[in-house]
Amino acid sequence: MIKVTVWNEGLHEKLSKTVAGIYPAGIHNCIKSFLSSQEDIVVRTATLSDKKCGLSDEVLDDTDVLIWWGHMAHEKVPDKIAAKVAQRVLDGMGFIALHSAHYSKPFKLLMGTSCSLNWREGDRERLWTVNPSHPIAKGVPPFINIPVEEMYGERFDIPEPEQLVFIGWFAGGEVFRSGCCWQRGLGRVFYFQPGHETNPTYHDENIQRIIINAVRWAAPCRKVFNVPTGHSKISPEERLHEADAKKH
Amino acid sequence: MIKVTVWNEGLHEKLSKTVAGIYPAGIHNCIKSFLSSQEDIVVRTATLSDKKCGLSDEVLDDTDVLIWWGHMAHEKVPDKIAAKVAQRVLDGMGFIALHSAHYSKPFKLLMGTSCSLNWREGDRERLWTVNPSHPIAKGVPPFINIPVEEMYGERFDIPEPEQLVFIGWFAGGEVFRSGCCWQRGLGRVFYFQPGHETNPTYHDENIQRIIINAVRWAAPCRKVFNVPTGHSKISPEERLHEADAKKH
Amino acid sequence: MIKVTVWNEGLHEKLSKTVAGIYPAGIHNCIKSFLSSQEDIVVRTATLSDKKCGLSDEVLDDTDVLIWWGHMAHEKVPDKIAAKVAQRVLDGMGFIALHSAHYSKPFKLLMGTSCSLNWREGDRERLWTVNPSHPIAKGVPPFINIPVEEMYGERFDIPEPEQLVFIGWFAGGEVFRSGCCWQRGLGRVFYFQPGHETNPTYHDENIQRIIINAVRWAAPCRKVFNVPTGHSKISPEERLHEADAKKH
Amino acid sequence: MIKVTVWNEGLHEKLSKTVAGIYPAGIHNCIKSFLSSQEDIVVRTATLSDKKCGLSDEVLDDTDVLIWWGHMAHEKVPDKIAAKVAQRVLDGMGFIALHSAHYSKPFKLLMGTSCSLNWREGDRERLWTVNPSHPIAKGVPPFINIPVEEMYGERFDIPEPEQLVFIGWFAGGEVFRSGCCWQRGLGRVFYFQPGHETNPTYHDENIQRIIINAVRWAAPCRKVFNVPTGHSKISPEERLHEADAKKH
Repeated sequence: MIKVTVWNEGLHEKLSKTVAGIYPAGIHNCIKSFLSSQEDIVVRTATLSDKKCGLSDEVLDDTDVLIWWGHMAHEKVPDKIAAKVAQRVLDGMGFIALHSAHYSKPFKLLMGTSCSLNWREGDRERLWTVNPSHPIAKGVPPFINIPVEEMYGERFDIPEPEQLVFIGWFAGGEVFRSGCCWQRGLGRVFYFQPGHETNPTYHDENIQRIIINAVRWAAPCRKVFNVPTGHSKISPEERLHEADAKKH
Repeated sequence: MIKVTVWNEGLHEKLSKTVAGIYPAGIHNCIKSFLSSQEDIVVRTATLSDKKCGLSDEVLDDTDVLIWWGHMAHEKVPDKIAAKVAQRVLDGMGFIALHSAHYSKPFKLLMGTSCSLNWREGDRERLWTVNPSHPIAKGVPPFINIPVEEMYGERFDIPEPEQLVFIGWFAGGEVFRSGCCWQRGLGRVFYFQPGHETNPTYHDENIQRIIINAVRWAAPCRKVFNVPTGHSKISPEERLHEADAKKH
Repeated sequence: MIKVTVWNEGLHEKLSKTVAGIYPAGIHNCIKSFLSSQEDIVVRTATLSDKKCGLSDEVLDDTDVLIWWGHMAHEKVPDKIAAKVAQRVLDGMGFIALHSAHYSKPFKLLMGTSCSLNWREGDRERLWTVNPSHPIAKGVPPFINIPVEEMYGERFDIPEPEQLVFIGWFAGGEVFRSGCCWQRGLGRVFYFQPGHETNPTYHDENIQRIIINAVRWAAPCRKVFNVPTGHSKISPEERLHEADAKKH
Repeated sequence: MIKVTVWNEGLHEKLSKTVAGIYPAGIHNCIKSFLSSQEDIVVRTATLSDKKCGLSDEVLDDTDVLIWWGHMAHEKVPDKIAAKVAQRVLDGMGFIALHSAHYSKPFKLLMGTSCSLNWREGDRERLWTVNPSHPIAKGVPPFINIPVEEMYGERFDIPEPEQLVFIGWFAGGEVFRSGCCWQRGLGRVFYFQPGHETNPTYHDENIQRIIINAVRWAAPCRKVFNVPTGHSKISPEERLHEADAKKH
């Protein structure tokens, strides 16, 4: 079983009737719902208003993949929690940053760049699969039409993606690297652009498929891994040069 | 001085009045003309109808960067010449594949993939700079409008670009990885999508700037380089293990 | 079930008593044996002396991952079969090139480079895991000692690996990028250096684990995939620009 | 002219007679000296004991490439200065992290990983050039012998290098990705392993050549660059979809 925690800021749903209409139980519960339909995935949720943002050590110990949705309150997430999340990724936890989470603290810490971009109000988007045999594109058609999405456009200030899986086209004339993969430490990171709070994007079956695939891709190969670092733990007997020396 | 050879199939210009009207001296001479305006670049041209396709050993010995435009007669280029060109790239020569040269023999040999794509007749294109500090983007604005270009769309079957510099947007709803960099052997390879024969794209100042930049980027660091391969040429004295052994 | 075909040149085993002593049933059957111990893998073998090199369309239709071992008779593999194998990789089949298969025809076709390297007779090797959370490194310790392996040293003329998983250290003073991953078309390619015919390397449990992992990593996400290319199959109704035009 | 600032912690030279013997004027002045011999490079130095670490806005405004050497006092560099340096890199400044600067604050901020590694006291190193046509390897032989260097060994916790230029071999049995390139924002980053304070490594002509090359590689294409981000600055007229709409 892959243990997923869906983290959502959870404010727009409270402040806007439009958003509440689209996601009555919150974006996190919408995502939980379609992930939970998969036999190999179990899901919990956490939000900004929970104690410790819902991200205690106990929760993180029990998380294989963390999904992050945030927008208007990135600064409300304490630096300490952001640093802890980033460290967990380095330790092997998968991390999926959705939409405006490009500006979330953990994502920026992991990327090392500003993660800035251009944006504009809703427009038609067509999402192209440029790496159709990537695990995250499994079962995804050559392109997906999204009737309305907030426009996110280049230049997107990210490190060169290790695999670029999706590119977004917007009717107003923009393009965007919409689905990007990286490894950081022992963990895998996926950024995925669609999902503005005022658009019903997470109800789209293909968008759901991509996020389900991303969970499986980002799940760590093994939970506990011991990579020695620091002063070399190789015993003198194992140092090959000295071993030579002894023989003679 | 960077020595450039511009290779052009050179058939459309002879067969079509439209093309001849846009490029009266041929696409190769248009490219030669704007490259020659640069103080650090000297240019010769070669075409399919020249003896040995204009690509004798003498010419290639004197070429730092080879630019390739071909479309309707890829198969007319002898396999031997294509293999020789690819080998020169492995030896350090720069290679710039323009537009339909995605299907040219040397490019396919260097990529190892089918290099297939989707295409459609002319459409408006907007070319986005996604890596603005890459040498090939020097002086290039955030985006370039191209009034009409043949549509090239994903999926483009290429190895993941080592640097993706430009992404094309087409009015009909498509995107394309339009400016892509790779290294093969000791040589650098750049693919650049704009430049259909019936469109005056190579007269565009920004397109010219990109090709000029690409020439400088693709020029080899050093012309002659000796990378030993095969049975190790390291003398026994330099083999560290045996050197150890001797000391004792 | 992952369907694996292990291809072996199969000549050294016939020509050398030493090699026959180490691999009495041939290298291919040694590899088949440890792969077959896995519940999710079924294995067939094929050799150079089989009809069509044992690689008929029927066999390839039934192969998810092809493992290749060859050394002294690369040139005996017909160009047509090499091209067919490379095409299958582009179509999604996984490909694992072992040891001297760096010079095999299908691997060179897929890489587009000379794949040359430096080599020397047997030496002690220590294989380091540089990407411990990569699926191919699952359960593999930080390093593996190989008492004797043919020395393969840099410069290895390959495209920059998309993921570098292992680096080899040799007592004589050399290093080698020993475990390298690429994607080509829809297929995944892994090169793995250890496995000279006169060394019992494929009997090593950790080496076996790496090859088992590589099979699982290289197995295609889906066997049949339809990526449209050529003249755009998007219906006029789906062309967004024209759709716009109609509305007005 | 490329304007370089060499930053050195500058403590070992004061605390250890051995180090002072090797670098009487400090590591920074040794580096300044060989860089200054180049006609296209001008150099200033800065150290931890200078006001604001010698890295005022005025100094950084006048710096194309910042070289960083630090070891025992990484924590003494204020977070604010480290963040400012990292931001300058995103804005286009080149950054070269030498030896134990793998643990410096700016480098860790740019990488987003722990940058941990294994280390051991001095050993013989052989540094291999694995990408001989990379600009940083210009004029560098296939390998360089370093009689004694502190051992730095894998696993080195860095993002996959965009180009791996050098791999280090150590007599005790270790390997290390010793020369690694990345882009972050508009800036270029190079990490280079050799240069322990008690070894005379920066007096080695080949090591000097590599650092000189790295300065030229890391120098920004253009100092001032305006990449618009935030709310789209594209005028409504330039939005292609709306432009369409108007025509009808």
